[in-house]
Amino acid sequence: MKRGLRILGIDDGPFKKGENYKTVLVGVLTKFNSYIEGITIRKIDIDGTDVNDQILSMFNGRFNREINLIMTNGITFGGFNIMDISLIHDKTKIPVISVVRKKPNIASMENAIIKHFEDSEYRISIIKKSYPEEFLFSGKKLYVNYAGLDYTEVKGIIEKTTIMGNIPEPIRLAHIVATAIIKGESYGNV
Amino acid sequence: MKRGLRILGIDDGPFKKGENYKTVLVGVLTKFNSYIEGITIRKIDIDGTDVNDQILSMFNGRFNREINLIMTNGITFGGFNIMDISLIHDKTKIPVISVVRKKPNIASMENAIIKHFEDSEYRISIIKKSYPEEFLFSGKKLYVNYAGLDYTEVKGIIEKTTIMGNIPEPIRLAHIVATAIIKGESYGNV
Repeated sequence: MKRGLRILGIDDGPFKKGENYKTVLVGVLTKFNSYIEGITIRKIDIDGTDVNDQILSMFNGRFNREINLIMTNGITFGGFNIMDISLIHDKTKIPVISVVRKKPNIASMENAIIKHFEDSEYRISIIKKSYPEEFLFSGKKLYVNYAGLDYTEVKGIIEKTTIMGNIPEPIRLAHIVATAIIKGESYGNV
Repeated sequence: MKRGLRILGIDDGPFKKGENYKTVLVGVLTKFNSYIEGITIRKIDIDGTDVNDQILSMFNGRFNREINLIMTNGITFGGFNIMDISLIHDKTKIPVISVVRKKPNIASMENAIIKHFEDSEYRISIIKKSYPEEFLFSGKKLYVNYAGLDYTEVKGIIEKTTIMGNIPEPIRLAHIVATAIIKGESYGNV
């Protein structure tokens, strides 16, 4: 991996069920693994379907020429607003990596989607093609999805961008900013 | 300077005259010169007098025991909401450094204050005790105010916390976050 690779790390802000209709989606553009070059903020619907459009809008904004890779905290944002990794990769032509620390409970997600959404077929179709792969890092397990690069490249990028703990900086930084915007304070625990 | 020194970098968000009554004041807690540990956000009145209270509220929040030094982008926030460096130092007992790149035009500031504020004596009294000191760094001039440490220490801290350009990371980061919150996007130009 080139040291100068520019990564857009993306995470959403927290929200309370029933209290909000939207939360923030924050993109942090980093270089040299952790140096912040810029921040871009969008709003997404809680349990909506606009997260893909909002990520593409970040990519097509002023950052466009700068971004070499997109890295996200999981594939669900603002509840069940689900990112379609292959769609994002197809539209942007750059690699996309999604990383989570907790093993996603796919069966429970599918049940919740069937119960609560009329467009459950659409949402489940994205989940079905995004089964996360187990990934051992620093003695801990991470769960990854990716498009546009291979497992060895994903491993290299996660290793180089992780400074402390086991979450890559671009995602950790997006998480801190998104949480601080909604809660007023944030202490960096993804 | 200890590498583990925790610095709270503070900057305000932009605002348009007449359109807003408040803007954000963002504090970014950094360690190892640039590693972000947390973010804290307050609101301040445009042309108000609450910036000192809001900085003290950041210090007295959950970050309290963590902060070893406060570093700000200048002494005026949200227009003419003026920080009193010696007051902040007296109340927190930690060193405070204010850094700006542009030479402040004190005479023009005093004129504007006399013209627009009934409490101009109070505001000018803070400005009078905060004449900035010239500071040569990387071949460029910075202007600094400080309390609770000496010139050599200030120099060391500014040198160690500056990665690119000539603005220390804690301030550059606070600036990017504050600008992104208000404008939706920010590209790191302080």
